[in-house]
Amino acid sequence: MLNEEMLHLGKKRSAIRELFEKGKILKEKYGNNNVFDFSIGNPSIPCPKEVNDLLICLINDANNNDLIKLDDYKFDSTILHGYTSASGDKNSKNAISNYLNQKYSAKTSPDYIYLTTGSAAGLAIIFKAITNSKENEVLVFAPHFPEYSVFINNSNAKLVKVNPQLDTFFPDLSDFKNKINNNTNAVIINSPCNPTGVLYDEETIKNICNILEEKEKEYGHPIYIISDEPYRELIYTDDKYPFITNYYKNSIITYSFSKSLSVPGERIGYILVNNECENVDDVYATICGAGRSLGHVCAPSLFQYLIPSILGKTSDLSIYAKNAKLFYDELTKIGFKLIKPNGAFYLFMKALEDDDEKFSKKALEHNLLIVPSTSFGIKGYARIAYCVKEKQILDSIPKFKELYNEYKTKN
Amino acid sequence: MLNEEMLHLGKKRSAIRELFEKGKILKEKYGNNNVFDFSIGNPSIPCPKEVNDLLICLINDANNNDLIKLDDYKFDSTILHGYTSASGDKNSKNAISNYLNQKYSAKTSPDYIYLTTGSAAGLAIIFKAITNSKENEVLVFAPHFPEYSVFINNSNAKLVKVNPQLDTFFPDLSDFKNKINNNTNAVIINSPCNPTGVLYDEETIKNICNILEEKEKEYGHPIYIISDEPYRELIYTDDKYPFITNYYKNSIITYSFSKSLSVPGERIGYILVNNECENVDDVYATICGAGRSLGHVCAPSLFQYLIPSILGKTSDLSIYAKNAKLFYDELTKIGFKLIKPNGAFYLFMKALEDDDEKFSKKALEHNLLIVPSTSFGIKGYARIAYCVKEKQILDSIPKFKELYNEYKTKN
Repeated sequence: MLNEEMLHLGKKRSAIRELFEKGKILKEKYGNNNVFDFSIGNPSIPCPKEVNDLLICLINDANNNDLIKLDDYKFDSTILHGYTSASGDKNSKNAISNYLNQKYSAKTSPDYIYLTTGSAAGLAIIFKAITNSKENEVLVFAPHFPEYSVFINNSNAKLVKVNPQLDTFFPDLSDFKNKINNNTNAVIINSPCNPTGVLYDEETIKNICNILEEKEKEYGHPIYIISDEPYRELIYTDDKYPFITNYYKNSIITYSFSKSLSVPGERIGYILVNNECENVDDVYATICGAGRSLGHVCAPSLFQYLIPSILGKTSDLSIYAKNAKLFYDELTKIGFKLIKPNGAFYLFMKALEDDDEKFSKKALEHNLLIVPSTSFGIKGYARIAYCVKEKQILDSIPKFKELYNEYKTKN
Repeated sequence: MLNEEMLHLGKKRSAIRELFEKGKILKEKYGNNNVFDFSIGNPSIPCPKEVNDLLICLINDANNNDLIKLDDYKFDSTILHGYTSASGDKNSKNAISNYLNQKYSAKTSPDYIYLTTGSAAGLAIIFKAITNSKENEVLVFAPHFPEYSVFINNSNAKLVKVNPQLDTFFPDLSDFKNKINNNTNAVIINSPCNPTGVLYDEETIKNICNILEEKEKEYGHPIYIISDEPYRELIYTDDKYPFITNYYKNSIITYSFSKSLSVPGERIGYILVNNECENVDDVYATICGAGRSLGHVCAPSLFQYLIPSILGKTSDLSIYAKNAKLFYDELTKIGFKLIKPNGAFYLFMKALEDDDEKFSKKALEHNLLIVPSTSFGIKGYARIAYCVKEKQILDSIPKFKELYNEYKTKN
């Protein structure tokens, strides 16, 4: 009487996980320094020292006093590890809203924030909240983060892929327009994007919003933009980040501190419903209901209390920026075709044959671990995560040369 | 296109929450010390100083060294706040399994442990995993934790209530037997129990297991025992705790460190599948799949790494034991009828009229916040949470006397 779908999901290893396991075997055979693992998007630079210092401060305070002082508030010290309200601590929500309003000239309200245990929770909650039948469709710009399909399936809705423009990896807007119908209730934007590293410019965001507003009128119901923003701060150009609530009414953001602060294991992020959303109180109540239903209540308290002091701080992201430039330049010099990365910590490379899975296997023969793009919903590319030490990038270049030459010789 | 069910769930305040809000208004009117809030099951004693000391140690280590030392292992310091595998850190799982095997003479295996963000996550995952159709039924011993129905609804299965024996609040085993049918796929045991404070003795556990084994044979499929154990260490008698995997093959435990360590906000617990379960690998894979589907992957890492050093430690639970005795004795002296509490931090009191909601409202007029038992699936009682300061209990006694006398005078 087990749930077959869950059994399948639990047994099926993701392509990334599969590669990781193969990498382990290679590392045992050739040594750690001779296998070049670019498969996993795990922050490699430490969290800001301030994060750890503040954690110690808070804990010390709780250890030595009956009352701890958090900003202007004083709390019974049991509160530090205690339940907050299901949707999160008020002080944290206020701080987040103030920060966003200041940084992006936005008009967010703390009343529509729901603290989450990271982005996975945020996405699972949002899809459960905003879909209500098997007919519902959620549009996703390919290539896309593979787990979107898992969370959309959980809510019984259907994932519909929108093709990219292959020169820029911005969405193909005419394909986007064609794929919206009366059953469409949301589209996911993930910019900077995993796996392409592309940041959508303001014009693209405006175009997407215009199309959606037109379609909302046509079909007479909201079509939500779900903006998945774990890489919001990981931008390596001077481009302005178009903050979605400034452009579109029916928008919902899911954010995670995982990448910006290098704390992915601590499970801390938030959902923000635009206060200009149609029936915003109902939308927010539905988010709260879905959180409760899925067992996502009260994000880790210690990190909730840390948030007000740490907003706007990041790990030393210049390391990723440097890696991005170095790696892109070196691979381009060899002859590989890549999308110029503006953000996140991924390069998206054209495979040297149509079958990206075969290409990734061929790379593995050179001890290079790169993820075939089929996992991200399109064919013919590979994702290279550069959240690694610079030395690994430099040492891998001769191997990429070998890989390139092997294909050149063949043709 | 919002999910109506989630909207309803998000809008509907639980009775406990409702009381809490009313309490806030009373406190403003009469002052904090003149309102006696026994509504919320939130640990009131601080976590052991060792927990905070160890946290500081770990964080200091990560701050000052490239490598941190955890037990016998050395890790890159970014790992402290980094992703563990979705099901949790191996070292933590090993420690949990070893601890349980030693403490309860059990034979658990670390391979079937899944670290969770607390009990809410554990329950949501388990129900999603072990039910597969609307016909499925999960048996629950009344009175029961209200959120069971939320998580069972999320998995589309049906909650079926089993009546208690009203003298002991052990389950009525003949009612239990009658309610098992071919659609039953699980029963929840919650001992020590929220809301009754009752601990099931070994004989009761054995009787439940015998009935289930018989029914498993009759229907030819597993009927799981789901043992929900957040109060496992909160026992105030010398009774031995009957550890479920020692009694029943198809058993799954969900545990949380929330109550034993007073860290409910930190969201750390685990699911353990008995390694003697039928098709244990499939059951565990289904748990992993459900975790992934609901966005429950990787429990908070800092607390995962803490676990091996802190297993078996608890907050100073003698304070709850003292409260339990004091409160029970005083209320009994007044004339109230209560179940003698063996564990958790709740007293279960017979209401002085049939309608427990009216009784709770009457108590509120005396500034006493107690939860009507209808929220827990039975009529005619009230739950009193005694995880409060002793002074609050002592100061409340005259109010309980007033309440009692008001009913006496009426009849």
